[in-house]
Amino acid sequence: MKRTAFVVSDRTGLTAEAMAHSLLSQFPGIDFNIETFTFVDTAAKASELVLRCLQIRDSTGSAPLVFLTMVNDDLRAQFTEANIGVFDLFQTFIGPMEQRLGVKSSHTIGKSHGVQDEKAYTSRIAAVHFALQTDDGMDTDNYRKADLIIVGVSRCGKTPVSLYLSLHYGLYVSNYPLTDHELGSKDLPNALQAFKHKLFGLTIDPYRLLQIRQQRYQASSYSNAETCQREIAQAENLFRAESLPYLNTTRMSVEEIGAMIVNRTKTGNRL
Amino acid sequence: MKRTAFVVSDRTGLTAEAMAHSLLSQFPGIDFNIETFTFVDTAAKASELVLRCLQIRDSTGSAPLVFLTMVNDDLRAQFTEANIGVFDLFQTFIGPMEQRLGVKSSHTIGKSHGVQDEKAYTSRIAAVHFALQTDDGMDTDNYRKADLIIVGVSRCGKTPVSLYLSLHYGLYVSNYPLTDHELGSKDLPNALQAFKHKLFGLTIDPYRLLQIRQQRYQASSYSNAETCQREIAQAENLFRAESLPYLNTTRMSVEEIGAMIVNRTKTGNRL
Repeated sequence: MKRTAFVVSDRTGLTAEAMAHSLLSQFPGIDFNIETFTFVDTAAKASELVLRCLQIRDSTGSAPLVFLTMVNDDLRAQFTEANIGVFDLFQTFIGPMEQRLGVKSSHTIGKSHGVQDEKAYTSRIAAVHFALQTDDGMDTDNYRKADLIIVGVSRCGKTPVSLYLSLHYGLYVSNYPLTDHELGSKDLPNALQAFKHKLFGLTIDPYRLLQIRQQRYQASSYSNAETCQREIAQAENLFRAESLPYLNTTRMSVEEIGAMIVNRTKTGNRL
Repeated sequence: MKRTAFVVSDRTGLTAEAMAHSLLSQFPGIDFNIETFTFVDTAAKASELVLRCLQIRDSTGSAPLVFLTMVNDDLRAQFTEANIGVFDLFQTFIGPMEQRLGVKSSHTIGKSHGVQDEKAYTSRIAAVHFALQTDDGMDTDNYRKADLIIVGVSRCGKTPVSLYLSLHYGLYVSNYPLTDHELGSKDLPNALQAFKHKLFGLTIDPYRLLQIRQQRYQASSYSNAETCQREIAQAENLFRAESLPYLNTTRMSVEEIGAMIVNRTKTGNRL
């Protein structure tokens, strides 16, 4: 079964998109064609979209599922009054919240992804620069400033997770690759020894690691099955021997890994 | 007025958090203390939270606003049955969606931020590595592979935006700093000339730029008001002379800048 879904927002659409994907993923039997329309902030843009919905309804027999986050009442009305059955992700809750809080909402757009205060913005940018500066074992002299140091074998996903944590949570996150040489030793690499309390390990299914490595380096000792298996086994042994918290990332997205690290280390959101 | 708000999820809580912030930002007169609880996936964790809600209600006279995304019916029921008035961000729409689609939902958790397919995961990681490899004017030989090349003066926010676009949209995004030397010329820097169609400019209020630069380099010609003003004026002149699309990022978050670039360049989401 195929269906069309529209995500429509008068701003970035990021929240609406996340919600819509979350909701639609609950219907795995349906093949959704999801289209996102952001910055739909004029009556003309809104009518054009409503017209497309009606055309799809007339030609396929069912209107697209429209997930809406619009603060402007007039623009929202263009959708709700067209009788296409809109899922109003925002307004659905604003009424009950007004009742509960005993005050009217401000009806202003874009607060959630705007720069709320300059201090938070600056901390976040500083966190990203810190992650870059201490990526892949660089500049270990700065580890005293780190909130977290992600450790793991090459290509297990340390860099994207570090950057995500810095962007999303404003955390100072370094990452350190466990190389072949260091994996042979029973001890933590020297650079890490004073920072054991900041370490978090990543591991991955050796076969998945092999796939990832082969996409980059097709034939080398680095990208053969035996190396991947050995390195992962050694890294996991090290995590256990040192009682480090660690996570197998094989089936996880960067967001999930990030959220789980924050949850387990109780580092929290710095923004 | 002060109020407590809880964001509760049996998974990463990312969607719930974004929604809750969006909704609460509509009540700027209230000072919300927002706490997020992720991976609330057992009956024990759920009861503990419900108990905290009741305690807050009894001690302050009003229960926290609870924003819930829980797929597990039993865990959700612990909250809804406690009569604390829950905003059920997820279930509110699932019923109407089931009716509309004529099928039952799967009630499985964490689909939205899970690894949906390995191809998307791999493309995303490749995009992040591309952004790193071509950050700050490095490796311009690779510009033919870029979807976008962000240009602007030093410290105007190019790197975080490039990384965000790669992480969130899977786009191949490079960034190139317009240096003092190049800003003096009337032409695009050599490295950029063949890729004019991929360029997107960032600009920023000179006073804000000054603040950002001063936080890093307290006293240098780079971080004085005159330099910031001149560089920004020259960069904007260049964007206009070359008819490049550009954006003033002064009041925008990284997410907003990213979404707006994708909207204006129609690059779309590669994931």
